[in-house]
Amino acid sequence: MPHFLNTQDTDFEARFVELLAMKREDSPDVDHIVAGIIADVRARGDDAVLELTAKFDRMDLTADKMRFTDAEIDDYCSQVSPEDRQALNLAATRIRDYHLRQIPQDQMWTDMDGATLGWRWTPVSNAGLYVPGGVATYPSSVLMNAIPAKAAGVKRLAITVPTPDGVVNPLVLLAARIAGVDEIYRIGGAQAIAALAYGTQTIPPVDKITGPGNAFVAAAKRRVFGKVGIDMIAGPSEILVIADKNNDPDWIALDLLSQAEHDESAQSILITTDADFGTAVAKAVDKRLETLERRAIAGKSWADFGAVIVVQNLDEAATLSDRFAPEHLELCVDDPDELSLQIEHAGAIFLGSYTPEAIGDYVGGPNHVLPTARSARFSSGLSVLDFMKRTTLAKMTPSALAAIGPAAERLAKSESLEAHGLSVRARLDRLNGDHDE
Amino acid sequence: MPHFLNTQDTDFEARFVELLAMKREDSPDVDHIVAGIIADVRARGDDAVLELTAKFDRMDLTADKMRFTDAEIDDYCSQVSPEDRQALNLAATRIRDYHLRQIPQDQMWTDMDGATLGWRWTPVSNAGLYVPGGVATYPSSVLMNAIPAKAAGVKRLAITVPTPDGVVNPLVLLAARIAGVDEIYRIGGAQAIAALAYGTQTIPPVDKITGPGNAFVAAAKRRVFGKVGIDMIAGPSEILVIADKNNDPDWIALDLLSQAEHDESAQSILITTDADFGTAVAKAVDKRLETLERRAIAGKSWADFGAVIVVQNLDEAATLSDRFAPEHLELCVDDPDELSLQIEHAGAIFLGSYTPEAIGDYVGGPNHVLPTARSARFSSGLSVLDFMKRTTLAKMTPSALAAIGPAAERLAKSESLEAHGLSVRARLDRLNGDHDE
Repeated sequence: MPHFLNTQDTDFEARFVELLAMKREDSPDVDHIVAGIIADVRARGDDAVLELTAKFDRMDLTADKMRFTDAEIDDYCSQVSPEDRQALNLAATRIRDYHLRQIPQDQMWTDMDGATLGWRWTPVSNAGLYVPGGVATYPSSVLMNAIPAKAAGVKRLAITVPTPDGVVNPLVLLAARIAGVDEIYRIGGAQAIAALAYGTQTIPPVDKITGPGNAFVAAAKRRVFGKVGIDMIAGPSEILVIADKNNDPDWIALDLLSQAEHDESAQSILITTDADFGTAVAKAVDKRLETLERRAIAGKSWADFGAVIVVQNLDEAATLSDRFAPEHLELCVDDPDELSLQIEHAGAIFLGSYTPEAIGDYVGGPNHVLPTARSARFSSGLSVLDFMKRTTLAKMTPSALAAIGPAAERLAKSESLEAHGLSVRARLDRLNGDHDE
Repeated sequence: MPHFLNTQDTDFEARFVELLAMKREDSPDVDHIVAGIIADVRARGDDAVLELTAKFDRMDLTADKMRFTDAEIDDYCSQVSPEDRQALNLAATRIRDYHLRQIPQDQMWTDMDGATLGWRWTPVSNAGLYVPGGVATYPSSVLMNAIPAKAAGVKRLAITVPTPDGVVNPLVLLAARIAGVDEIYRIGGAQAIAALAYGTQTIPPVDKITGPGNAFVAAAKRRVFGKVGIDMIAGPSEILVIADKNNDPDWIALDLLSQAEHDESAQSILITTDADFGTAVAKAVDKRLETLERRAIAGKSWADFGAVIVVQNLDEAATLSDRFAPEHLELCVDDPDELSLQIEHAGAIFLGSYTPEAIGDYVGGPNHVLPTARSARFSSGLSVLDFMKRTTLAKMTPSALAAIGPAAERLAKSESLEAHGLSVRARLDRLNGDHDE
């Protein structure tokens, strides 16, 4: 049974706060193990990576076998059915079209003082993408990480994907090829993150690492942050659906279950203006759970973290949603565009009953790597900007320096940074000398 | 004596790599202390903050004295000289003008399949800015952090600034007022970061924390990352100057010293096409060091980490500069604009001999919070974007869903996420039913 709340209940606020604060992540403390792995890879390079791969993935590799050859990739790709290939291509095209629009503009202008100012965006040169292996290996995540990188202009994009016991997912390799990935290595875990960050004899280091992974991968990303850039550390997935009674309860049930089936720690919440509709959705969830393949996972997630919240009106729904700052927000109401204007904090919004969240996971176009655990209050989904950086530019003419230099000198003095002031003063003196003498 | 390198020397590459790898940061491991402070503030709120403030800042506060009152701020602001006030106002105006241009555009479009897609930017609601107290308290940093936040649209902006032994810098309060800061608290250290992140009885929590600080503050920011957003963890400052012989050696010397005077761990590097000019600059540095107020700090930084590198031509200079990915890059050459096009990795570029880096620290307009320690390879200076986040939007019509839904269903199946596929299938069935029956 999920949690049932009604804003009219006297204990509503307390229960809502409890729901907000629910600790959903069970992250074992693996930091000391990961620190050892990183130190080992830094010290011994390939040898360390190969030993760890033998140990954790039961794969006896040699350095020259770490990277998939083009022929191997060809071979795996040829195993993909035409239907799957077509679906991947459609997804890739739509994701690429969306992300190419995110490429930011450079700007440069000259102000009234004669100072020319601006900025210029450039891509990260080398990026690495971690792809989980085994059960939770998702070709869609390859597209969602690799396509923005390539759209940004990343020259060299490397993937690491573990192949425990030699198991390879051909769809992952095909997705990488479609996205234009340059190198694919069959390694994983913290050792893959260390190899990407510090480089080995075989794997040149990268500047930025993105992609999801288990607790070891997440801890390793935290540790190498600073040496390289990283994306967010993603938590369990979550969805919030705001739906009025004019919806098919089964559709909404399936949308809630499509998050719940990810992970026992996932969270699915329905906010509705109609209590009977809420009950109907909960019933529809139970019915679907009878036959769902991943019913064990989805059922536990729904029972532990699922919630149905009955509100008086849509304004109340929007306010509560903003307090959750959900990763995914579906607005299944008459005028979803209007309601969306009231939302300040959400990773992605799906407008209307014909936009199930699953569309966004695969083929909509927007990225499916989104801020979890209320971090949409301060962060955004993955985008082209994650693979670019901005250099600011400033150019003074002598007269611009004469206009604004004295203020800089004054502030430098107030901060007791004498050389700062002198570097301006020396130039101003020359200008005064040129003009006055 | 700084390091002297010449690309023609046989050991150049080895010495250059050594220079690149030079460990400049002495960060004591204070993580366990900081973890205790954060836990204490979370558990006891104001009481913990007050006790720690008494201990570290020798300030006996009560909860109702933590925040500066408007009258107190008025009083301190009135102590600022008209000249300093004018300089701060000029700086604030220029910084605001620059950052307002960074506000990103929302986009929304409908594609050929009938899918409406886009994104919308919204500000972070609550932000906190850490301002160091004591010697290194910089009003310019208040402007550089607070103005982008307010330009982004942050509703509530709180500052914490420790006042050890009761010492208050009136310029810091005036800078905060000019920048539109809403709340100022006289607390600091890891306890201030904990209070901002988790809130206390007196200080409501924020969603994002920016601003520089000592090792305790940096460790606390790392620890609260995830609960709130943070900006980068800044390392020691650094400058790289590319200069040809047509420069006044004294100007370049002062530019190098204006980084060196920040910190014994700062790094100042000159790359020049003329060996004699390099020697002349080194001499000019020595001469200025004789009288510079902060000569102890600047002298040590220059001796330990300073370098003069002689290159054959400007192409070589640009290539080496990109390997440093410097925080600040000055191009004192005939055609700095042209040379800047060869630069891929730099936090900020200062074009031409009349643009000393100190201009950028105070009044240029661009932000002076910039990526250090080679992180310009993957990150950018502080900007309006650090105080905003993006929500993606997607809206399918029934016909758009009919066009792209089957591909989503196919990919969901390939990832064994049945409910994802069913959430699309249920809608497609309805559409088919509507059409066919």
